[in-house]
Amino acid sequence: VPPRAIRRGDQVVLKVAYDGREFAGWQLQPGTVTVQGALEAALARLHGVEGSERVALVGAGRTDSGVHALGQIAAYRAPGGRGVEELELGLDALLPPSVRVLSVSVAPPAFHPCRSATGKLYRYRIVNRRTVLPFESPWAWHVRAPLDLGRMRRAAARLEGRRDFASVATGGGQSETTVRHLRRLEPRTEKGGTVIVDAEADGFLYRMVRNLVGLLVEVGHGRREPDDVTRVLDARDRSAAGRTAPPHGLCLVRVDYGGEDPFRADPADLEALGGGW
Amino acid sequence: VPPRAIRRGDQVVLKVAYDGREFAGWQLQPGTVTVQGALEAALARLHGVEGSERVALVGAGRTDSGVHALGQIAAYRAPGGRGVEELELGLDALLPPSVRVLSVSVAPPAFHPCRSATGKLYRYRIVNRRTVLPFESPWAWHVRAPLDLGRMRRAAARLEGRRDFASVATGGGQSETTVRHLRRLEPRTEKGGTVIVDAEADGFLYRMVRNLVGLLVEVGHGRREPDDVTRVLDARDRSAAGRTAPPHGLCLVRVDYGGEDPFRADPADLEALGGGW
Repeated sequence: VPPRAIRRGDQVVLKVAYDGREFAGWQLQPGTVTVQGALEAALARLHGVEGSERVALVGAGRTDSGVHALGQIAAYRAPGGRGVEELELGLDALLPPSVRVLSVSVAPPAFHPCRSATGKLYRYRIVNRRTVLPFESPWAWHVRAPLDLGRMRRAAARLEGRRDFASVATGGGQSETTVRHLRRLEPRTEKGGTVIVDAEADGFLYRMVRNLVGLLVEVGHGRREPDDVTRVLDARDRSAAGRTAPPHGLCLVRVDYGGEDPFRADPADLEALGGGW
Repeated sequence: VPPRAIRRGDQVVLKVAYDGREFAGWQLQPGTVTVQGALEAALARLHGVEGSERVALVGAGRTDSGVHALGQIAAYRAPGGRGVEELELGLDALLPPSVRVLSVSVAPPAFHPCRSATGKLYRYRIVNRRTVLPFESPWAWHVRAPLDLGRMRRAAARLEGRRDFASVATGGGQSETTVRHLRRLEPRTEKGGTVIVDAEADGFLYRMVRNLVGLLVEVGHGRREPDDVTRVLDARDRSAAGRTAPPHGLCLVRVDYGGEDPFRADPADLEALGGGW
């Protein structure tokens, strides 16, 4: 049951969807338009925070410039009380249409959007035919040359598991270890020449999904063998892997916190929702 | 089987998809950016037509400013020979991503994109919940207040058939008669609070679908009774109907020419395709 009101000091959790094309990524950066910046500005106004004070928002993951989200999770400490509905309507009105807050919840003080997460689901979308529709091009990588899905699936299966993913991490991350548990890497075809790659892990390195997809596309085009991909990981060297897939095909679909989604956006099942995602 | 080459004088038929937000409608208008204008300019360049000459394109329907298309049909007389693949690649390269030519075919001389059409399918998309996702908002009307689909379906059933649709035609059309055969008007729910209204008819009057959807939404909100809609048509007066639904929820999905789609875009089944459409 969602709260009716937020009290000062509550940890407020937002579920957020955004069109990554409109932003220089999630994270606050002076002089650029970021999702965090847009949300913090709107929240500061709604909570009446003034001057040099800010509403400090912590996100579950720092999506890169151009990457979309359907279920990004972010939390802040409420600087004052507010009705939930009032907050929702205020966010709808103040934010640009490219960012939408899908639900507002209150979490226990110990909750941390990133550290409490048990996993994430990213989805990568490829349109694999001559033409990409205007309705698809904002959210998909257009790859003209035919992809062999069987080869991509065999390669993906070899990449699953607890492994060192240093070869598919672009510098810039701040992680202590490059070992992650890739629970699922699953390319599949959808209607009309669309290939979806779902990637689920306990966590992801910087640009890991886009680098994995770049690698799978090379395998799908026959430029690499499915068996080669484990050798790429064994090399523990970014230069061993292929090109990085472009950001606009990628979407952070869901952040998991164990068990049922505590920040479920009512009434829509987000995973089944909108724009092909 | 699609032709390998186009010869001078051939009637070339294009199947076209576009994002209506980027255009002041289909029809050529000096000083504005229209779909017809963009296509004619690209074709003139590819066919080497110069100076005051133009490639005159005839469309199956003049979609209004902001209205999308997934399967608009347009034809022109080839001013010279060209390879089909060369033409396709050239159009891909010269046109903005907001217009895509999905297939290039050759039709018999007697074929006319509009007069030969036996029917059209338009689809209207409504998002009926608090928030609309950034992936949905470009192609859907956001209606916050809950809609009663049962009421909408009862009203829609009463509007089907061969009737005088003058009450749901906005002035500006050039038709001699306002009688049309509305074969199907079918509101249905999709995943997560989306309402789709499919409208199939032998032809449509100016703004007819958007006016019908406006009427159905009034019924869905309880501001009009399902039985009232036949009285609205009987009035044969635009002021008897309700508001006009906005253009960006509407898409020309398909033009029918009797039998199988002769301009099928291979390999994708367009109706099953992309961006939620």
